[in-house]
Amino acid sequence: MAQQASELFENFQQLSPAEFFRKNRQMLGFSGKITSLTIVFHELITNSIDAAEEAGILPEIDVELRKVENDKEHYILRISDNGPGIPEDYIMKVYCSMFAGSKFRNIQSRGQQGLGCSGCVLFSQMTTGKPARVISGYKKDGQLKGVKLKFHMDVEKNVGNLLEKDEIEVDRTGVSIELHLKEVNYSMSEQGAFEYIRRTMIANPHVKITFRDPTGHKYIFKRAADVVPVLPKEVLPHPKGVSADDIKNMAKNSDKRSYKSMLTSELSRMSAKRVEEIQELTRIDMKKRPRNMTFEEAETIVKCFETMKFMAPPTDGLIPIGDEQIEKGIRQILKPELVETITRKPVTYKGGVAFIIEAGIAYGGDAGRIVNAQKKSEIMRFANRVPLSFEKGSCAITQALESIDWKRYGIKDFENAPITLFVNMISTQIPYNSTGKQSIAPEPEILHEIRQSMMKLARKVERYLRKQRSKAEIEFSKS
Amino acid sequence: MAQQASELFENFQQLSPAEFFRKNRQMLGFSGKITSLTIVFHELITNSIDAAEEAGILPEIDVELRKVENDKEHYILRISDNGPGIPEDYIMKVYCSMFAGSKFRNIQSRGQQGLGCSGCVLFSQMTTGKPARVISGYKKDGQLKGVKLKFHMDVEKNVGNLLEKDEIEVDRTGVSIELHLKEVNYSMSEQGAFEYIRRTMIANPHVKITFRDPTGHKYIFKRAADVVPVLPKEVLPHPKGVSADDIKNMAKNSDKRSYKSMLTSELSRMSAKRVEEIQELTRIDMKKRPRNMTFEEAETIVKCFETMKFMAPPTDGLIPIGDEQIEKGIRQILKPELVETITRKPVTYKGGVAFIIEAGIAYGGDAGRIVNAQKKSEIMRFANRVPLSFEKGSCAITQALESIDWKRYGIKDFENAPITLFVNMISTQIPYNSTGKQSIAPEPEILHEIRQSMMKLARKVERYLRKQRSKAEIEFSKS
Repeated sequence: MAQQASELFENFQQLSPAEFFRKNRQMLGFSGKITSLTIVFHELITNSIDAAEEAGILPEIDVELRKVENDKEHYILRISDNGPGIPEDYIMKVYCSMFAGSKFRNIQSRGQQGLGCSGCVLFSQMTTGKPARVISGYKKDGQLKGVKLKFHMDVEKNVGNLLEKDEIEVDRTGVSIELHLKEVNYSMSEQGAFEYIRRTMIANPHVKITFRDPTGHKYIFKRAADVVPVLPKEVLPHPKGVSADDIKNMAKNSDKRSYKSMLTSELSRMSAKRVEEIQELTRIDMKKRPRNMTFEEAETIVKCFETMKFMAPPTDGLIPIGDEQIEKGIRQILKPELVETITRKPVTYKGGVAFIIEAGIAYGGDAGRIVNAQKKSEIMRFANRVPLSFEKGSCAITQALESIDWKRYGIKDFENAPITLFVNMISTQIPYNSTGKQSIAPEPEILHEIRQSMMKLARKVERYLRKQRSKAEIEFSKS
Repeated sequence: MAQQASELFENFQQLSPAEFFRKNRQMLGFSGKITSLTIVFHELITNSIDAAEEAGILPEIDVELRKVENDKEHYILRISDNGPGIPEDYIMKVYCSMFAGSKFRNIQSRGQQGLGCSGCVLFSQMTTGKPARVISGYKKDGQLKGVKLKFHMDVEKNVGNLLEKDEIEVDRTGVSIELHLKEVNYSMSEQGAFEYIRRTMIANPHVKITFRDPTGHKYIFKRAADVVPVLPKEVLPHPKGVSADDIKNMAKNSDKRSYKSMLTSELSRMSAKRVEEIQELTRIDMKKRPRNMTFEEAETIVKCFETMKFMAPPTDGLIPIGDEQIEKGIRQILKPELVETITRKPVTYKGGVAFIIEAGIAYGGDAGRIVNAQKKSEIMRFANRVPLSFEKGSCAITQALESIDWKRYGIKDFENAPITLFVNMISTQIPYNSTGKQSIAPEPEILHEIRQSMMKLARKVERYLRKQRSKAEIEFSKS
């Protein structure tokens, strides 16, 4: 019997973001036990490092993963940092409201989407029903304050639900979070939580991480470098990197009195003189109020940008790891025979989004990965210093590196060579393929930069291998 | 200068779902001009087919894509269907509220996430600033009503913003939507909009689609079959397919008076007798009120399910296309020399989620794909009859098919063979890899079923090819 529309819509409902992700948790990366644990490590460690750096603090993170006795599937994870802490009023917002965050700016940062921490709390709650516990030490009006909260996430409302609160004494700032987890598995595999920490250390030699694993073994990853990286600045968008929709939104939310003052203050490389040029070219009156800008005007202005020449985007907003630091990180962790690294000059994709590619090759020593007692080459991918553990097939880094003909560089059997390739992309806007933030979209300029930088390093490896071979031949002919 | 926490959190904000996706549109699949247009076709066509079938109507869809004169980047898309229409009060909710929908049920359906239509309107608005226009004819209390709306999406509030409304006369039910689009490209490539329609027709031989392309050429894809597919039923979840969190949520929202009546009425294969067994095994009093269920109890109950045997999930909720229908679809579109199809029996993944794999091989004729004037083999992937156009590398279908050793089946150079492989997965819960719904997670049972079904068909192709060869040899020896 056919139904009429009014009956078909009886079940119509609006989900909260948290409800949506409860029904679709794989979209946050939670699929599979090993993957799920790595995602939790990733989100919480990333947040700790970002927070400490933003406050100018050399990051120090304690991670403890323990098993609950008599329940081999039940873990408790505690991650504590020495960052600036979270003010009491924001704690539940950070950990219980999806799409909430302080990082929605045009700034190079590890996290970006307001999904990470709250996704971990959601996952913990879904798999164990247990509340989250957070201790935060933070400064307010110069005073050090401490608070300890226990809370649930109210999934329907996308907010936190406080269960217990204590004001406590703390001796420094920082956050400590404790989550119960099930449906996870601690693994030493390439995509597991341990490897995630190891790679984090390679790309962040200024971080100290102490990790106590479920057997009680304590790993101390010491710093290989002692300086907090220069803090990336928020960069104004470049005229070549904005869409008509961006300009229209800028106008809608602007407190400036004219198109002119809006454009000069909210875009980079935009002077009063350039705005006059735009007025001349487009015949749009630049004295008008931004609130009244139409989409067509925004479109005309953006089209005009396309025909104009601008200086490249300012790149002081991009802070690479630096080739020396990468070398330190690689030496400390991989102890290779040979290491070559490079940090390229900033370039752009999509015409106006600046990025930097950094690359490294480690040969010999602990480079490469042992799989079934066989040494294999490995690729380590990073975006703004964060290891990318999954979705490798769709990632620009994998695609660029696999397109290189390694035989040309004297590496006959690349797959079975003792080689680790390292690539890090730095940008205020990493073009991720999906919500999981695990792979970089293969934009042509990005592919090109990765290939170029790695081929440059490959030539150095080739020279090294040639020398080694001729040395061996000389020794052979002597003997 | 180090900042204290209270300053660092000054920028803290909560985004609406629509704002979130405005900043991350690639997560809805909108990246690249060809892809973006295919995504819009996909979302709107899928919705039209689902709506018509749900109302018991044989779907008929008119698609018209035209270019705006003097602007080669500007398209107007109009899609009209003969479905049940949308009641006036729901039109803007469907098209302007993300995470809103009527399909969040345990039912086999093409769409599922409440993101599709509103994502298209968001994309249209972001790229053109133009409003959406919708005409809906629908029945209310047996009366045919018609309404015409013009609206914007209020992205900050995640709701629609009405610009114009007219009550109009209509002569049948159905929805017609018109969207302006820029940053899209109409392409005949494998991932383009035309191919999307073609594949839709193969998997949906009961649908009629008329398509007028931007050059004005009109394609009429006639029905190869004349029956509306049996409507899938909503299926109660199976005890082996639920988590503790599901049971806890069920209890929270249940209007039943006891655990017992809740479990028997909201799970499949659960009788009063089985609940008694559970009470005996767990010592949980099944007369208690659902509202008070703890997570620990839910966990104990789910653990108990794991130790019990249940009949497999009812499969009348799963409606495959059927091997005969697939054959009709393939013959109509590909006109191959040989076609073999199979619809497998329902099986489960994750212990309790039922699914069906259907497969087809077409050999010769228009099977395969012409790339640079060379015939290549091709893989067509479907989930609940919907073509999957992107993310092929991470899809269970691709992975399973690429693991087959085609040489064993007499196909020496699979890559260059005139072959089309067709795989459709039917399930109430397709495990998509990401929000784009473009690839199926490689669960072991799914991989296994795909391999098995395709190898079965491959043996038939092998026999056919062997016969052809010996025929050719006989003719050769005669001559």
